Amino acid sequence: MYSEFQSEIIVRPDDIDMNNHVHFSKYLDYLLAARFDQMKKDYKMSMEEFLERDMTWFARSITINFKRPLTLGDTAIVKTQITDYGAASVFVKYAIYKKGAETKVCVDGTSEFALLSTKTGRPVRIPEDVLEKYSV
Amino acid sequence: MYSEFQSEIIVRPDDIDMNNHVHFSKYLDYLLAARFDQMKKDYKMSMEEFLERDMTWFARSITINFKRPLTLGDTAIVKTQITDYGAASVFVKYAIYKKGAETKVCVDGTSEFALLSTKTGRPVRIPEDVLEKYSV
Amino acid sequence: MYSEFQSEIIVRPDDIDMNNHVHFSKYLDYLLAARFDQMKKDYKMSMEEFLERDMTWFARSITINFKRPLTLGDTAIVKTQITDYGAASVFVKYAIYKKGAETKVCVDGTSEFALLSTKTGRPVRIPEDVLEKYSV
Amino acid sequence: MYSEFQSEIIVRPDDIDMNNHVHFSKYLDYLLAARFDQMKKDYKMSMEEFLERDMTWFARSITINFKRPLTLGDTAIVKTQITDYGAASVFVKYAIYKKGAETKVCVDGTSEFALLSTKTGRPVRIPEDVLEKYSV
Repeated sequence: MYSEFQSEIIVRPDDIDMNNHVHFSKYLDYLLAARFDQMKKDYKMSMEEFLERDMTWFARSITINFKRPLTLGDTAIVKTQITDYGAASVFVKYAIYKKGAETKVCVDGTSEFALLSTKTGRPVRIPEDVLEKYSV
Repeated sequence: MYSEFQSEIIVRPDDIDMNNHVHFSKYLDYLLAARFDQMKKDYKMSMEEFLERDMTWFARSITINFKRPLTLGDTAIVKTQITDYGAASVFVKYAIYKKGAETKVCVDGTSEFALLSTKTGRPVRIPEDVLEKYSV
Repeated sequence: MYSEFQSEIIVRPDDIDMNNHVHFSKYLDYLLAARFDQMKKDYKMSMEEFLERDMTWFARSITINFKRPLTLGDTAIVKTQITDYGAASVFVKYAIYKKGAETKVCVDGTSEFALLSTKTGRPVRIPEDVLEKYSV
Repeated sequence: MYSEFQSEIIVRPDDIDMNNHVHFSKYLDYLLAARFDQMKKDYKMSMEEFLERDMTWFARSITINFKRPLTLGDTAIVKTQITDYGAASVFVKYAIYKKGAETKVCVDGTSEFALLSTKTGRPVRIPEDVLEKYSV
């Protein structure tokens, strides 16, 4: 199995919707922000470095379960973990918690991110050196 | 089976992200906007009417597959269809197309929306008259 | 004086904030969406055409006054009017109304949009043919 | 004169627009997030406390000048300072910088926030104890 990493995202007022909770689609943005943060911090290859090599990660599919809301004043803890690899994609499970209450899941799910060529827009095989960096 | 309904959403510049496509989480917003539109237009019971009766729909889980991007200048066609009912929830499948190119799916998936009491925050059994309106 | 043009923007659920109103920053997005719409519809030169000629419009400064809120179920009417030109910019006043209640301003203000080269990132003099299209 | 306070906002991927910069309306969200943060941290009266006393702050007008863009990987430093008081409002000037390059302003402007009753929706005179907390 691969390592679980985590990032903190401070809930902003513009994330809150008419129900006084973090708007449901914002959790995908928190997941994305966490992956970007962890690419740099944990996998040691930032999105900027992927772009410089004419590659980008692209969400292919996501499942998301909403269990408990986050709200204004909360900080989200976003934990992600690679569970598997395809030729051109990574499978990542994730869970989002309220900081200070990490025993209860707020949101969780699975995701597949494909590696694309920014030149052709088509999937590219994950390069060996990337696989190595990602296999922590 | 239940009826399929559709709504049009015009892509706005603030929906576009650094990849020059509609940002991935915005498709959930398009789905939500379409459900609100169809509640009023097709099910003949708007979200405002649910709120007046101390009820609200809440997304419990969603799956989403990203197949083709929408971009600036496009209009999204969002088709949704109830596939099943639980005691306190509806299961809705959806697909999003580019207007004028409706043979190719851009985004699709499934969703479960639960009916909640705005007083208790807990699930409530779907009232008979709502079930009837929704069984078209 | 130059012509006033108008666009309709349907308020989406994701535009609503914790106060049950359109979130204050979304009015800038409505203004931008209206300008894009009017570039194509009224000035007969879409943003895509500017980009093809290596130019883009960029907001340099904006003033905004919040007078009455828009809310879920409303359609925004966004009226804009060029008031003056600089060498590399247009000055645009705008007002946003609730459709069906156009005697009362919801939001209004002024804005300056500069024309930039997408190659250099620097201001460019507005070309003669653009000035002509914009002088309606 | 009153004290200048500052907050840090980490730029998220969903803040970036088609120009590869922080989207222009997001700076208003950064300003709002900073004010909320500073209400708790510096003025010692959080928005939640205002709401408990049936009051809320509401943006009445804003001016904003866009000078240099922020981009992915940046952290915004948002500095705000009360410049004056009305009976029911505060006047706040602000400037946003890129962390690590605080000699150059990215965005700046002025704003007026009115204190409203959440019961009547109308302006309320700023209570004495609030004025005192805010007069730092």
